[in-house]
Amino acid sequence: MKLLEDKIKSEGIVLPNNVLKVDGFLNHQVDAQLMFEIGKEFGRLFKKQNVTKILTVESSGIAPAVMTGLAMDVPVVFARKHKSLTLTDDLYTASVYSYTKQTSNQISISKRFIDEKDRVLIIDDFLANGQAVSGLLDIADAANIDVVGVGIVIEKTFQKGSQIIKDRDIQLESLARIKALTDDGQVEFE
Amino acid sequence: MKLLEDKIKSEGIVLPNNVLKVDGFLNHQVDAQLMFEIGKEFGRLFKKQNVTKILTVESSGIAPAVMTGLAMDVPVVFARKHKSLTLTDDLYTASVYSYTKQTSNQISISKRFIDEKDRVLIIDDFLANGQAVSGLLDIADAANIDVVGVGIVIEKTFQKGSQIIKDRDIQLESLARIKALTDDGQVEFE
Repeated sequence: MKLLEDKIKSEGIVLPNNVLKVDGFLNHQVDAQLMFEIGKEFGRLFKKQNVTKILTVESSGIAPAVMTGLAMDVPVVFARKHKSLTLTDDLYTASVYSYTKQTSNQISISKRFIDEKDRVLIIDDFLANGQAVSGLLDIADAANIDVVGVGIVIEKTFQKGSQIIKDRDIQLESLARIKALTDDGQVEFE
Repeated sequence: MKLLEDKIKSEGIVLPNNVLKVDGFLNHQVDAQLMFEIGKEFGRLFKKQNVTKILTVESSGIAPAVMTGLAMDVPVVFARKHKSLTLTDDLYTASVYSYTKQTSNQISISKRFIDEKDRVLIIDDFLANGQAVSGLLDIADAANIDVVGVGIVIEKTFQKGSQIIKDRDIQLESLARIKALTDDGQVEFE
């Protein structure tokens, strides 16, 4: 998606350890018009999947997920993150490890908002090692629902996250695919 | 806003201690079409304020804030919540007490995304005791910027949150104003 790649080139900041900072338009300050275009694009790409529900994880997934929900006219559920969980009877839960923060979180979704008949599209801001998507897939398995697509705003294709999605034959669409972040601060796209 | 009041009547769940659960369309599962209408309504109500930026707090404020940013064509910044903060040089921070969870959090916004010339609209999902809005007002004061409006999806008018906004002569618009949650589970609007 050219609009997104241009934004990454002009406003993304490359930091050491393969970190790409996009807090100027995606995960702290949010460019609402760009999110709207992203939502429309995911709507177009997953049109044939008869999606009934969108899943994401708080907080950075919410803006692109809600815009996709708007484009596809389906509800969005965002998983909550917790340091720990005690009462879990009414929840589907999974453990998610963050390489950036080097901590594990529990994520949860209320059982009331997932139905066995749902055809779920997972939306997230980043795909790197695939921990967040993997957690949502665990929840989908526990709930016995079909995940028909995964939509990612920015994928780091040099990390292994896409493999778990391809292994399950799920349609994966990444709007910006980054093959390298260079030592001199450049972003190289596929 | 009738659409919102109807949704609260049909899907809101009244719990003890004046808790109104709206996780079916606002703060866990999100009704994207409703959020879009909410964004348009805030855009209409604050049209004359020449808003340049929208502030909110993660996570439940993000959906209505981003839709308002779309309607008004301005960027949205969501404050991050932290249990504690150590490195704060580049951040504006404030302390926010949650009556529901009975814990304090720090909220923060990067200094890079606030400018002295900004005319800020604060958007949040709930106004009850006003702790979150108060934290964002503290940040606005520290950044020396004008807050020209506060837009709330659901206000509990029987709690004291609106007072801190009225005391500062800031335009307050609440799309649903609840005057009572009754023992038999009814929601009474103003």
